Amino acid sequence: MALYVYKFGGTSVGTVERIKAVAEKVKKSQDAGDQIVVVVSAMSGETNRLVGLAKEMQPQPTDRELDVLLSTGEQVTIALLSMALHNLGCEARSYTGAQVRILTDSAHTKARIREIDEANMRADLDAGRVVVVAGFQGVDEHGNITTLGRGGSDTTGVALAAALKADECHIYTDVDGVYTTDPRVVPKARRLDRITFEEMLEMASLGSKVLQIRSVEFAGKYNVKLRVLSSFMEGNGTLITYEESEMERALISGIAFNRDEAKLTLTGVPDLPGVASKILGPIAAENIEVDMIVQNISENGTTDFTFTVNRNDFTRAKNVLEGLRSELGGSTTLIGDNSIVKVSIVGVGMRSHAGIASTMFKTLADEGINIQMISTSEIKISVVVDEKYLELAVRSLHKAFGLDQD
Amino acid sequence: MALYVYKFGGTSVGTVERIKAVAEKVKKSQDAGDQIVVVVSAMSGETNRLVGLAKEMQPQPTDRELDVLLSTGEQVTIALLSMALHNLGCEARSYTGAQVRILTDSAHTKARIREIDEANMRADLDAGRVVVVAGFQGVDEHGNITTLGRGGSDTTGVALAAALKADECHIYTDVDGVYTTDPRVVPKARRLDRITFEEMLEMASLGSKVLQIRSVEFAGKYNVKLRVLSSFMEGNGTLITYEESEMERALISGIAFNRDEAKLTLTGVPDLPGVASKILGPIAAENIEVDMIVQNISENGTTDFTFTVNRNDFTRAKNVLEGLRSELGGSTTLIGDNSIVKVSIVGVGMRSHAGIASTMFKTLADEGINIQMISTSEIKISVVVDEKYLELAVRSLHKAFGLDQD
Repeated sequence: MALYVYKFGGTSVGTVERIKAVAEKVKKSQDAGDQIVVVVSAMSGETNRLVGLAKEMQPQPTDRELDVLLSTGEQVTIALLSMALHNLGCEARSYTGAQVRILTDSAHTKARIREIDEANMRADLDAGRVVVVAGFQGVDEHGNITTLGRGGSDTTGVALAAALKADECHIYTDVDGVYTTDPRVVPKARRLDRITFEEMLEMASLGSKVLQIRSVEFAGKYNVKLRVLSSFMEGNGTLITYEESEMERALISGIAFNRDEAKLTLTGVPDLPGVASKILGPIAAENIEVDMIVQNISENGTTDFTFTVNRNDFTRAKNVLEGLRSELGGSTTLIGDNSIVKVSIVGVGMRSHAGIASTMFKTLADEGINIQMISTSEIKISVVVDEKYLELAVRSLHKAFGLDQD
Repeated sequence: MALYVYKFGGTSVGTVERIKAVAEKVKKSQDAGDQIVVVVSAMSGETNRLVGLAKEMQPQPTDRELDVLLSTGEQVTIALLSMALHNLGCEARSYTGAQVRILTDSAHTKARIREIDEANMRADLDAGRVVVVAGFQGVDEHGNITTLGRGGSDTTGVALAAALKADECHIYTDVDGVYTTDPRVVPKARRLDRITFEEMLEMASLGSKVLQIRSVEFAGKYNVKLRVLSSFMEGNGTLITYEESEMERALISGIAFNRDEAKLTLTGVPDLPGVASKILGPIAAENIEVDMIVQNISENGTTDFTFTVNRNDFTRAKNVLEGLRSELGGSTTLIGDNSIVKVSIVGVGMRSHAGIASTMFKTLADEGINIQMISTSEIKISVVVDEKYLELAVRSLHKAFGLDQD
């Protein structure tokens, strides 16, 4: 008998029929002798509907009240799923975040979990019941309803798995696992049977979007085995592990990319201490997140400073820099480019193997793709290229690193 | 400075614009220096939508989960109203039933309030905040969400007013008070400035539908001054009092009527002890509610037994009685009539005045209206007549008892 936490996102519970399909899947697992805790999101579309109502009331809705409002979305789903389970003759009991007692801090709309009381859930599991928990929500020490922010249901799933010492936490989604790259770009992309947490973190932050970064970090911290599976297809999905047990790891696990980037360069910036913070301080003050940062070596006492931001923030970032130019002095010029993309190769194997970077750069050069920026971490190498080369770059790298073969 | 509990039903908070109008009204009262607790229902249509979803999951939804589901309706409204108040610069804080701690028994879908913790609400009021509470819902001692059943938001309003010792509990609805009778039937019907609890109970149970009976009983028990007002019009509404302080009471306060009645008569029933329960026992076992009951005096050892039920239950009740006829013996015959109505005159004044009944019967006789059944209580007299006479009966009684004049 194993204990599993299953998490189903908004698309997986988006209609009456889909909720019934989830109930069937859960019942099957229980019939097989396993103990099941199910975490569900709001039905797809519901959160947006509620946010729309909120904004009609107050252009910037009060955070506390927004949490009271949005938490109803998951509460509807837990009740409906429990009914669907009852209808199959499967004992089940629903829990809101407050009823479990998922204790969080009081940071409304982006609360952090502090503690989970597992007593009630454990009693239900021992009595043979399925436990159905509302994702995304908790309660602070004063009894206020809190929410965990975007992707919070994944975090709930992982946190419950950690608290209950579950054997695995299954994240059901609309893809059947983590792929070597996006199959829409590379038809030969393959589903990975397993991937390490670190690789997953890099894949997620690079736009693979299968899992929220925070839940992956959380899983790594508490040693929770995560598995990504499809709600709609059978299959074993991709297991996310924290050990690198296999002797023969592939060098590279996958090729990630991100189309939402834009690049800003200030040339001729006087190369003085503190110049980077002078540039990025006002950007941060505008709540614009910076991704890659590259500063070239100094020539003649001036330097070129380049960074990327989300494409949606491009215009705002440009305006901030325009305002900065006179302040920076020198003959500073501003160059912006919002038709770029970032392509990355990710793999824990590159830690112990030299020559990965040069293979990547040679592959791109052979295709005539100019590299505009380079940034590296221990297990990934990212390059910025013109967006027109995205597909070509991803496909050629996928082939060059042997990901086309099983 | 007075403390008021305002209760707004589903129609009064049915749209974004109406919720904003409620916020305006509440702010105005607060600006005038009063302390305000607002109780709200789910937006109109929402409860039916949720019940529809539930039934798609499970033909007979589990009560506990139905409460989890339905309670989201009011939770949405408290959040939205609080935002609307904030948008007007009015400090406000929302509370679910569980957050107030409205402690109920565990009878899901029809729970009874046991205890209300007023500490948190009091602290908010003292800090100058409007308190916004979800009607219709509570929590049992195990932390399960409960609901109070139909009209439960009225009960919440009255219970909070009792707990907080509020000066008045205002029930905002789509009518501007209690009328001497339905203005659609008698254009000269007048709004009553005040009415006693007992009269209100009789009016409500007779189909005036302004307030739920349970909340009126509750208000009487805890000495809460109830006032019925319109959400959409200015005005003082109707105050419902439990004292009869005025020397000069009108004899009759109003004419109530009910179109939803049907009549069943068993003739030639052997007049033996226990015959009434033999007839009504199987009716009750079918969950059919009986309203008026009349048994004529015995002739030749047999009697005629007549009672009324809701028109929707007519066929079911008839089938039950058909099955009973042979069991009762004698030459019992069954007569059913579902084209009847009940008309009642209500007034505490009739306690101390004779002749009210004969005025009523003479008025009807003068119009040629045959009375089929009569039933009386201390402060009302009800008659059953053919439904075609409804308007004529109500208008002539309204005039005969002087209700046409101010």
